[in-house]
Amino acid sequence: MEETIIEKIQELVKSRRIAQLRELLESINSADFPSLFEELDDEDMVVIFRLLPKDKASDVFVELDPDLQEKLINNFTDKELKVVVDDLFMDDTVDLIEEMPSSVVKRILKNIKPSDRKIINELLKFPEDSAGSIMTTEMVELKENMTVDKAFQIIKDTGIDKETIYICYVVDNSRKLIGTVAIKDLLISERDVLIKDILEDNVISVLTTEDQEAVAKMFDKYNFMAMPVVDKEDRLVGIVTIDDAIDVMQDENTEDFEKMAAMTPTEDTYFKTSVFKHAKNRIVWLLFLMLSSTFTGLLLEKFQAAISAVPLLVAFIPTIMDTGGNCGSQSSTLIIRGLALDEIKLSDLFKAVWKEIRVSFLIGAVLAIVTGLRIFLQYDGIHNDQSIKIAFVVGVTLMATAMIAEVMGCVLPMFAKKLKLDPAIMASPLITTVVDLCSMLVFFSIATAVMGL
Amino acid sequence: MEETIIEKIQELVKSRRIAQLRELLESINSADFPSLFEELDDEDMVVIFRLLPKDKASDVFVELDPDLQEKLINNFTDKELKVVVDDLFMDDTVDLIEEMPSSVVKRILKNIKPSDRKIINELLKFPEDSAGSIMTTEMVELKENMTVDKAFQIIKDTGIDKETIYICYVVDNSRKLIGTVAIKDLLISERDVLIKDILEDNVISVLTTEDQEAVAKMFDKYNFMAMPVVDKEDRLVGIVTIDDAIDVMQDENTEDFEKMAAMTPTEDTYFKTSVFKHAKNRIVWLLFLMLSSTFTGLLLEKFQAAISAVPLLVAFIPTIMDTGGNCGSQSSTLIIRGLALDEIKLSDLFKAVWKEIRVSFLIGAVLAIVTGLRIFLQYDGIHNDQSIKIAFVVGVTLMATAMIAEVMGCVLPMFAKKLKLDPAIMASPLITTVVDLCSMLVFFSIATAVMGL
Repeated sequence: MEETIIEKIQELVKSRRIAQLRELLESINSADFPSLFEELDDEDMVVIFRLLPKDKASDVFVELDPDLQEKLINNFTDKELKVVVDDLFMDDTVDLIEEMPSSVVKRILKNIKPSDRKIINELLKFPEDSAGSIMTTEMVELKENMTVDKAFQIIKDTGIDKETIYICYVVDNSRKLIGTVAIKDLLISERDVLIKDILEDNVISVLTTEDQEAVAKMFDKYNFMAMPVVDKEDRLVGIVTIDDAIDVMQDENTEDFEKMAAMTPTEDTYFKTSVFKHAKNRIVWLLFLMLSSTFTGLLLEKFQAAISAVPLLVAFIPTIMDTGGNCGSQSSTLIIRGLALDEIKLSDLFKAVWKEIRVSFLIGAVLAIVTGLRIFLQYDGIHNDQSIKIAFVVGVTLMATAMIAEVMGCVLPMFAKKLKLDPAIMASPLITTVVDLCSMLVFFSIATAVMGL
Repeated sequence: MEETIIEKIQELVKSRRIAQLRELLESINSADFPSLFEELDDEDMVVIFRLLPKDKASDVFVELDPDLQEKLINNFTDKELKVVVDDLFMDDTVDLIEEMPSSVVKRILKNIKPSDRKIINELLKFPEDSAGSIMTTEMVELKENMTVDKAFQIIKDTGIDKETIYICYVVDNSRKLIGTVAIKDLLISERDVLIKDILEDNVISVLTTEDQEAVAKMFDKYNFMAMPVVDKEDRLVGIVTIDDAIDVMQDENTEDFEKMAAMTPTEDTYFKTSVFKHAKNRIVWLLFLMLSSTFTGLLLEKFQAAISAVPLLVAFIPTIMDTGGNCGSQSSTLIIRGLALDEIKLSDLFKAVWKEIRVSFLIGAVLAIVTGLRIFLQYDGIHNDQSIKIAFVVGVTLMATAMIAEVMGCVLPMFAKKLKLDPAIMASPLITTVVDLCSMLVFFSIATAVMGL
C-alpha cells in the first residue's frame, strides 16, 4: 500500500470526511487492508472498519492477522459481531475460533445461529491438518432428476459466491455423492435438460481424514478449483477450495524449508514468533547435532600423533568438511524435493543411487584435481617432497568425500521416507555431521598410510 | 495408477476389445494418463490415444511429458495433429512449441490456423518468466452496453471452458480493460440488466512484462482464479489462470530449494536431468566454496604452533564448524523464506537483527554450557588443569559462533536483496564458509590467549 494513500486516509479520518473516505475505501482491495491497518492506530482502524459495506467487511476481516481480528472484535457490539460472523464461510469461522482466546470464542459462539453452531462444532472435531479441518460446508447441491432450470434457481437461492459456484455437486437421497456438474455445462445446456444427463460421474473426492498435504497435491495434479470431501459412507460433507489448497501448499513448503535447516517448524511468521519460541524451535536439533559432532572430535583425538607430526594437515580440514557438507546438501535437497513433488518414488532408489554415483564421480574428480594442483603449487619447495604427498592425500579424500556425501544425501532421505519419517529431516545438517565423520576417517587413514605417520 | 488397471488395459489392447477399452478409458482422469503411458510400450500408447474422444485427447496430451508428446506427434497424421492442436489453449500450444525440436515445430505450425499462428508468434516473443509468456488468450470479453442476456450468448459462442469462464472481462472499443464481471453476478442478475451496471471497476491487472513470480504472489494474496494481463496502453491481451500460477509457485519454490543448496537451478525433474547436466549444475558453486574455504585453511596454518602444543584443540574443530553452519542455516532459511513470502521487508533489517541477537544469545548460552560441561567432565583429570581452560575456550567460542552465524544468516540475505540479487544464494553453504573463518579465528585467538600458547 502506498504511503500517500495511507496519509490521505488518516487525514480523512481525522477530519471526519466520511463520504470521501467511504469512496476511497471502496477502491481498495480487501487483501490490501491488512497492510493499511498496520499503519493506523486502533481507533482509526475501528472507524474505517465500520464504514465498510457489510459484504466487504467480512472479506476484509478474514484477511487480517488474529491480533487485529481480536482488537476489532473487542470493539464490536454484539450486533456488529453477528453481522461479520454471519457472513464468514464456515472454514473461516472455524479458523477464527481456533485462533481466539476463550473469552472471545464465547462471544463469537453466542452470536452464531444455532444451526451454524452445530456445523462448527462438527468441523472443530476434525484432526488438525486433515481435509475435514480445511473444508467449508457452503456448496451447491443438486439432485439427479432436477432440470437445468431448477439448478439455476438453487444456485441463486444458495447465495452463491466465487468460492463455491463453479462446480455443483449431485447427491442422492442419502446424500451420497454421485457426480458433479460444471457451471459451463449448465450454461450450454437447454433449460429442460435433466441433471443426470449432463453430470460427470467419475468424481474424485477425498475422505475427511485425508492429510491436507495429499489434498493440496491432488489440486496441483488435477487442476481442480474445488475438491469434494466425503465421510466413510461416501456422503458429501464439504468442499476444499483452491485458495485454501494454495495456502496448504505454501505452508508445507515453508515447513520443509524449516525442517531442512534443522528447526522445529512453526505456523507463525518470523516476527510473530517470540524470541524464546525461536530459540526453542532451534535449540533441540542444534544440541543433537552438536553432540553428534563429538564423534568426529573423538576420531581426530585418535590421530593426535599424526597431527603433531604434520600440523599442516589441519589446514585442509575446513575444505574437506565444507565440501562434504555442500555435496550432501545438494543431493539431499534434490531428493527431498523430488519426493515431496512425487517426481521421485521409493522404488527409484537404485536408479537414484546409480545417478549420484556417476554425478559425484565427475564432481569429485574435478574437485580433487583443482585442489590437488592448488596444494602442489602452493606448497612445492616449502614442504619439500611432502607437497606432492599432501596434494595426493587431500585430492583422494575430496573424491571419496564427494561420493560418500552425494550418495548419503540420496539414500538417507529415501530411508527416512521408507520408515514413514519426513525425508526433510535428512537434509544438510544431519548429513553434514555423518559425512564429517566419514571424511575425517578417510583423510587421516590415507594420510597416515601414505605419509608413514 | 493401480497395477491391475494397467494390466487390464494391456490385455484389452492385445485382444483388440475396443468397446470395452473405450469404456474403461473414459473412467480414467486425464491427469492419470501420464503414469499409465509410462507403463505401456509406444505402440499401445498410440492405439489408446486414438481411442480417446476429441475433447479428452487434448486434455490428456497437455498432461504428458515432452518426450511422450513428441512420440505421439511423430505417429500422428497431419489431420490428427490438427485436431489435437486446435483444441489446445494458446498457452499450452506455446509451451509445446518451446519444448519440441524444430522439425516437429514446423509440422505443428503448418497445422495451426493462420489466425492462431499469428497469436502464437506474438506470445513466443514475450521474455521467459514474464506474465506474457504464461498467459493464454482465451477469455470472455464483454462490452459495457451489452445486456446480461447477450453476455450469456457470448459465453456460449466463445466455446467456454473451465479455465476461462468464471470472470468475464469488460473492454471498451479500443480494447482497454475497464472492468470485470463475475459469472455469479451474471447468474443473479435479470436478463435485461446492462453489463455496466454490474461490472466491478476496481480491476487489478498486470503488464505483459511483469515477472511471473510476482504474478503468482498476487494470486496468493488476492485469491484470484484468473488475472488479466494488459499491454502498456492498458489494452487486454490475455489472462493468467490459477493452474499456471500454482505451477509457477511450485517452480519458484523448487528454484529456491536448489539455490539454497548451492546449485544452479534447472527446470527439469531429477531423472530428466542428465548426469553431465547435474554435475555442471553443482560444480560451479562447489568449486567457488571449496576455494573460499582455503582462507580458513590458511588461518589454521598460522596457528600451527598452538596446534602442535595442544593437538587436542583440533578435536573441537568439527563441533565448532558444524554448529556455526547449522546456526547460520537456521536464520538464513527463515529470512530467505520470509523475504520470498513478503513476510519480511528490507526495512525490517534492524528489527530482524535485534531479534537474532537475542535468539542467538539464548542459544549460544545453552550450547556453551552443555559443551563446556561435557568437556570438563570428559577430560577432567586426564589433561590436568587444562580441561577447565579448554572447556572455557570452547564454550566462549560456541557462544560467539552462534551469535555471529545467526546474525550473518539474517544480514547477508537482506543485503543480497538490497543489491537486487536473489537472497537464496546467501544460504547455508556460503554462510557456513564465512562463519567457519570467523569461528576459527575466535577459537584460536582465545585459545592462544587463555592457554598461553
